[in-house]
This record gives sequence, structure tokens and C-alpha cells, in this order.
Amino acid sequence: MTSHTDSPVTAVRDYLLGLQQRITAAVLAADGADSPGFVVDRWEKPVGEALQGDGITMILEGGPVFERAGCGFSHVRGPKLPPSATQHRPELAGAPFEAMGVSLVFHPRNPYVPTVHMNVRMLAAAHPGQPPVCWFGGGMDLTPYYGFAEDATHFHRTCRDALAPFGDDKYPRFKKWCDEYFFLKHRNEARGVGGVFFDDFSELGLARSRALWEAVGDAFLAAYLPIVERRRDTPWGEREREFQLYRRGRYVEFNLVWDRGTHFGLQSGGRTESILLSMPPLARWAYQLQPAEGSPEAELTQTFLVPREWV
Amino acid sequence: MTSHTDSPVTAVRDYLLGLQQRITAAVLAADGADSPGFVVDRWEKPVGEALQGDGITMILEGGPVFERAGCGFSHVRGPKLPPSATQHRPELAGAPFEAMGVSLVFHPRNPYVPTVHMNVRMLAAAHPGQPPVCWFGGGMDLTPYYGFAEDATHFHRTCRDALAPFGDDKYPRFKKWCDEYFFLKHRNEARGVGGVFFDDFSELGLARSRALWEAVGDAFLAAYLPIVERRRDTPWGEREREFQLYRRGRYVEFNLVWDRGTHFGLQSGGRTESILLSMPPLARWAYQLQPAEGSPEAELTQTFLVPREWV
Repeated sequence: MTSHTDSPVTAVRDYLLGLQQRITAAVLAADGADSPGFVVDRWEKPVGEALQGDGITMILEGGPVFERAGCGFSHVRGPKLPPSATQHRPELAGAPFEAMGVSLVFHPRNPYVPTVHMNVRMLAAAHPGQPPVCWFGGGMDLTPYYGFAEDATHFHRTCRDALAPFGDDKYPRFKKWCDEYFFLKHRNEARGVGGVFFDDFSELGLARSRALWEAVGDAFLAAYLPIVERRRDTPWGEREREFQLYRRGRYVEFNLVWDRGTHFGLQSGGRTESILLSMPPLARWAYQLQPAEGSPEAELTQTFLVPREWV
Repeated sequence: MTSHTDSPVTAVRDYLLGLQQRITAAVLAADGADSPGFVVDRWEKPVGEALQGDGITMILEGGPVFERAGCGFSHVRGPKLPPSATQHRPELAGAPFEAMGVSLVFHPRNPYVPTVHMNVRMLAAAHPGQPPVCWFGGGMDLTPYYGFAEDATHFHRTCRDALAPFGDDKYPRFKKWCDEYFFLKHRNEARGVGGVFFDDFSELGLARSRALWEAVGDAFLAAYLPIVERRRDTPWGEREREFQLYRRGRYVEFNLVWDRGTHFGLQSGGRTESILLSMPPLARWAYQLQPAEGSPEAELTQTFLVPREWV
């Protein structure tokens, strides 16, 4: 499949590159005047057998507000859609395809500021001479170390409002999907307070499906930055830091054990350093850490890391 | 299958419990007078569907020499051997089985002291009224942060000498197996300087196979402790600490992404806190860290984290 300048694939690429720029510019501003800034790494490589990929990896490390903030764009092309991607579209088995997306994870320094993840991705496939079929996936989810109902509610409300123009069913469906996906079965614990998640989406037709998907990407800064602003100056000490590092271990566990994108990417020869942008700058493990009953640390798991309605 | 006091299963259980005691006593002594000591956690639980397990988890955290040292014994019984375990023994498909082992990972505080892993395990299965068939697996491998050829050579020589009475082929075969198993494909990098690894071993008959296996377990302290003694007082600072934490990230990546025991254990409902004894107390990630050419940090990956002959 060749990308023509008027194809939806090119338009989506342009959207994603613009989104990456907007988000990293806003994060840089939030990191303040002393920010070390983003390293921008343009790469191109064969990704496994017969695949070709390029991307722009952007990462800010050691900032005053963001201890590690990675935001990557990637675009992979291949001659044959893998079987795992065609379960619902057998007519496209073996067709040439393109996959692209923006993925980010921000790890703030202050334990009162939650970690956040957002991803928007598109898969397009077409048999020669036919128009491409596109489907969309993505979402965002919030992982606090200290729980605040107003933060969770703000995050979910922003997601709900972004999806509202596309039907009242979308937020509840995607919210539930998120709760199910970002769950650590080996801990019987949610990764965070959730958000929205969807995959393989094309049910509204190309234009409306893409509009829904862009609405999610476009809502990210409004969902997250007000929470950063609200919590960034909360005083914290050794206790909060230790707990944050411990909880970041859970983030590592989820991403390396359960996240399909990460696990499959690493096992199939993806670009390791770009895939592992999501890793925290520092994480710790301790045996059977049990926060004191009634402490904010115990409240996190009891009240926040369980699927519940936030709006 | 019932364990009678005269069955090989009972004898192996006794061996493993004794091994755990010997190793943790020696590590406690090496940790010195100020050691916080091992927490000893006896547990019993259903492990997934129709499985029953018990174990003793021992862990020392925050010691002067060992920052985190976990050593666990576990024993799982089930009514039906899973298909994954019977590929080479189809006649035992569906037979009642027992699996038991001791597994340890020690993370020292001083970056000049290498991390070590050792595991010995046995699987026994029998149809009712028949004697159990036993097979053995295990090994040990060393993961330095700063490489010393004499340490790698000592470790490998101890493994080789332990295996020598069982045939000259054993060390080279198990050494190669170790190099292949403890390899991070997504980094194209060995986990450490290797050691020995074997699985599904019964080729010498029950008594000799078990003797070989015990020889590996028995050799552990002699393989590792002299290295601890030699390096524990080497002065180190912020630079060495940062590099150690960074390299520990690789240990996390290997265990959560590639190690079959860990990955399968977490996904299938094993006891999470016991499985994750192997996690480092603290680990960090940084984007494309490139040690300066000619530095000891660069030498680690170039000279030590590549399969090579050490004896």
C-alpha cells in the first residue's frame, strides 16, 4: 500500500505527529523554566521480518516536575497483515498494512501527582488497488500513588465528555474495557483508577470512527494537566517517596507481564528503548509491604485500585 | 500420589529444606553482626485449579551486605500433570504429580559484588500403584555489575568441578544451556556471565540423576561466597550505584519478560510475593544509556555479557 498525500493514512500520520508536538510542548511548559527538555530521537529500522518502521521518540528525563516523561510516535509498514490482527477481518488476511500510533507514559517526581498513560493507534490494510480499511484503538488511564476522588472524577469526566458526541454508550463501554485491561491479575488489583480503552474500532465508519479517536487524543491534556497543576506543589517526604517507588514496581509488573503491546513488542524485535519509554525512572520491590490500616497508602488499594464509577 | 517417608519424593523434600537452611545460615553469617536477619514465612495455599501448595519463603531485606536476598522453598501437588510437562513423557499425561524446588536470588548492596541466582527443582509423577518417575532441573548463574574474569572463572570452575563426577559432557552442555536461557533477546545481551542450567534431566537413572542435581545445589555456596568475600569491601560511590541500579533494570526485564517460571507463575495464579523474591530492591531505567568507551561500565557489556568460555 502506498501512502498518497490524500489518503486517510497520511492524514492520520499528520494528526499523530501534530498530537505528539502539542502534548510534548505542553508538558515542557508544565515542567517549568528549569526543565532539561525533551531529547528528540528520530529512528528508522527494520522491525522483525519484512517489516519497516520509523518513528520519533521524545523523552524528558530528570525534570523538576516530570522525573521521566516519554512520548513516542511510531509507524510500521509490512507486506502481510499478521493473523493476530485479522481475526475479525478474515478478508484482509495477508494484505499489506500500516500501523501507527502515539504512546506516552509520564512519571512525575511528586508522589501526589499521578502517573498517566495515553495511546492512540491506527491499523490500515488494503489489497492492491482497493481503498484501505482502517481501524482504531487507544485510550488513557491514570495511576495515582495517593488517591483523590476529585482527580479521578475530573479525568473520567473529561474522557466521558470527549466521547459524548459519538453516542452515550461509548464512555461506559470503553471505561469498562479499561478496567478490565489495566488489571494486575497476579495482584488482584487495578493498575490505577482507569479511564478509557478501546481497540479494533471502526463501527462508526471511517470518518466518524477517526473523529472519535482524535477526540480521545485531543482530550488528553485537558484530562491530565489540571491534575498536575493541582498536586505539583503538595509537600512530600521520604515516606511518600518510598511508597511511590514501591507502587511504580506494580507499573513495571503490569507493563512487562500483562501489557500485550510491550510484551509482544519486546518478544518480536520491536525497538526496545522506544517500547520501554513507559518504564519508571526508579522503582523498588519489598516483601509483603502492608500499609497501616487507615493510612492513605492503605486507602489507595482499598478505595482507588478497584473498578468503580467516577462520574 | 502419597508421599511415604521412604519415597524419593520425601527424601528430595528433606534435601531441599536442608539446603535452604544451609544457604540462608551462610548468607546470614556473611551479612554480618548487623544483619536484620531473614523473615521466615511459611505458607500454604491452593495454587490455581485443583493444585495445592506449601512453602517456606525466606527473605533478608536491608542488610549491610545483602540489600535483598530471597530464598524460597515450594512444593506443589496436583491430580493431573499439565500437558506442558509431559511432552517428553506422554505415558505420564494426566498422572498425579508433585513439583518442588528451592530458588534464590541475592542482590548485594555493593555494586562490585555480583547478583546471583540458583534454583534446583524436581518433578515427580506416577500412575496409581506405580513407582514415581522423577526428573530434575536447576542451575546457577552470576550477574556482575562490574566484571572480573577471576570471579567468572571461579564460579564456572566450581560448577564444572561439581559436575565432573557425572561425565565430562555435563558442564559444557549445561554451560551452553545457561548461556542460551539467560539471554535478553530484546537487548541482544546475556543476563550475566552465565553458569550452568539444565532441565528435564533423568538420563542417569534416578539415583545418579538426583546425585548430580544435589551436587549442583551443594556447590552453590562455594561458587558464590568467596566472590562476596573478595568484593564486599571494595569502595564504591554514586557512579557505581547508579550503574548497578540501571543494570538491575535488565534483571527485572529478563525475569518478567523471558523467565518461564516467573512469567508462567504470575499468569497462572502462583504465589506472587514468593515468585517475585527475585526482584531487586531498587532498579532504574534511563533512555539509551551509553557508558563511555573504555570505561568499566562499557567493558561489562562488551567483555562479560557475551557467551564465552571461562574455564
